[in-house]
Amino acid sequence: MKDEFDLIAKLLQKRPPVDKSVEVDVGDDAAVYRPGLGMSQVITCDTMVESVHFSEQTMAPEDIGWKGIASNVSDIVAMGGIPKHAVISLAAPEVWEEESLLRFYDGLGAGAKHFGVTILGGDTVRSMKGLVVTITLVGEVERDCSLRRSNARPGDIVFVTGPLGGSAAGLHLLLREDTSEWIVRYPSLVAFHQRPYPHIEAGRVLSTLGERVAANDVSDGLGREAREIAEASGVRLVIEPSLIPISPETVAYGAEIGVNPLQWAFDGGEDYQLVGTLPAQSWERLLHLAKEKEVSFTQIGWVEEGEVGVYCIDEGKRSLLSYKGYNHFA
Amino acid sequence: MKDEFDLIAKLLQKRPPVDKSVEVDVGDDAAVYRPGLGMSQVITCDTMVESVHFSEQTMAPEDIGWKGIASNVSDIVAMGGIPKHAVISLAAPEVWEEESLLRFYDGLGAGAKHFGVTILGGDTVRSMKGLVVTITLVGEVERDCSLRRSNARPGDIVFVTGPLGGSAAGLHLLLREDTSEWIVRYPSLVAFHQRPYPHIEAGRVLSTLGERVAANDVSDGLGREAREIAEASGVRLVIEPSLIPISPETVAYGAEIGVNPLQWAFDGGEDYQLVGTLPAQSWERLLHLAKEKEVSFTQIGWVEEGEVGVYCIDEGKRSLLSYKGYNHFA
Repeated sequence: MKDEFDLIAKLLQKRPPVDKSVEVDVGDDAAVYRPGLGMSQVITCDTMVESVHFSEQTMAPEDIGWKGIASNVSDIVAMGGIPKHAVISLAAPEVWEEESLLRFYDGLGAGAKHFGVTILGGDTVRSMKGLVVTITLVGEVERDCSLRRSNARPGDIVFVTGPLGGSAAGLHLLLREDTSEWIVRYPSLVAFHQRPYPHIEAGRVLSTLGERVAANDVSDGLGREAREIAEASGVRLVIEPSLIPISPETVAYGAEIGVNPLQWAFDGGEDYQLVGTLPAQSWERLLHLAKEKEVSFTQIGWVEEGEVGVYCIDEGKRSLLSYKGYNHFA
Repeated sequence: MKDEFDLIAKLLQKRPPVDKSVEVDVGDDAAVYRPGLGMSQVITCDTMVESVHFSEQTMAPEDIGWKGIASNVSDIVAMGGIPKHAVISLAAPEVWEEESLLRFYDGLGAGAKHFGVTILGGDTVRSMKGLVVTITLVGEVERDCSLRRSNARPGDIVFVTGPLGGSAAGLHLLLREDTSEWIVRYPSLVAFHQRPYPHIEAGRVLSTLGERVAANDVSDGLGREAREIAEASGVRLVIEPSLIPISPETVAYGAEIGVNPLQWAFDGGEDYQLVGTLPAQSWERLLHLAKEKEVSFTQIGWVEEGEVGVYCIDEGKRSLLSYKGYNHFA
């Protein structure tokens, strides 16, 4: 990095206009903003490390910036909140040239703009090896309306918001030796992996429903996220894998290379869709509201009493979903 | 790192009790807390990288945890705020063993407890080389009462809250080959560097004074911090170096090794004291309030109209403080 202050000045040019809630902007010891009236604050933090979470092969600098914002937005969405203010820490090794760092900021700025996030500061430092990006995002949700993992109860419906497995399929494709020819044939899989779009309205419809809703964002695979809800709520989730929405390209790519796409859905992660539960009697009302907001919800199962965990039903047969993943249960 | 979840569980045992403002604690997609009534939120973020900001020679694992919290607290203090909620990202290389990481968490927990900070989550990941610690801290300040760099006006008094230069003197001592014998003779210098104590009450006295106050925390040396106030306010700060408080051990160590301790005060940094300005007519009232709260304020100069910058007066002679630092102006 040549000049930290010069870089920060360039980043500031790339960020979206500052929200009217901001009292003191970047450039003082800390930024100051006004919380919305009657709103609680939602806070989350996510770190991505080069060679651990991404590589040159899987992510362009712009994608890293976008995905950093998107993965944090997804956590706020999974609490039913509205993303608002972010601070960004970028630790860059010397081999990252200014042009690449500015491309990272381009993706960051584009993500912030798309998701309505105001960037209120951060830190730009040198790392010894590998880019390390830490983003902290603060959002807002109406008091006591957040979507908690512990909210699932027997009789609830289990739902997801959108197609799963696409990001893992995209990662599989990007790690091939002959990536370029496959990208042309399956462009949406690459987009699922590099440019996720968590849907803020999906969480908002759920948090403003006024019902007992549990939710998790699918960042670590449906299997683990569903299990977290089961464990936090002390219930059993029963999932019919045949009901899980999978995108046509994910299905086609899986068929072509001989992988069951459900494995990507259960074990992959980074889809940034929601998995959750809500009382069965509220399901029709949710679907009605969701249609207005152009959000999609699909029932994939139900909640039962019994030993805590996640069960899958395949051709009428029940199996406990193993900690080792979907492939081990079949 | 052996097991991220195991480590996080151990960290959670080391943190202070959770504040009553917390609606949703660690363990969901994001944490949720209620802001204080009529309060604005203050947010800051700081990253420390091994071999860049600290090394095995200068900081024990506990010190890194403590200093990470303290440096963020200092930024909240410099806005007049009360530190409240933090998220911690720890990127650790494989050579950092679990015992050292737990010692880091010990220092972090001790700092959080001392400064009244609730730890609401974070991320623990692997780094390719060197520990990378990013802490984001959110605090609160009464609406429109934050201490801004742009608040200085001609006629104001320039003050600092405590002794300067001690941290840089401590760093100098810790980087010696024969450190151990010097530590015994100058223990407070080591403490200044490794265990800074930003004084929350110092900022609170200033923000609740109901006056136009500018403030910066002295993290990058008095020279740069004073210049930031001058530039943000469009004024000239005039400082009498002979008025700057320097601790007796800093003076003695400087004399012994032939370094003018003012150089450490102006160019060193990490003292985590405040430098600021306020209207001269409020000075006596500030001193009165400060005495009640056991906070110390020392006048070191005044604000003038004229070319923007920081001037120093030595033996009646004025010189513009150079960007290159105090040693270059003498």
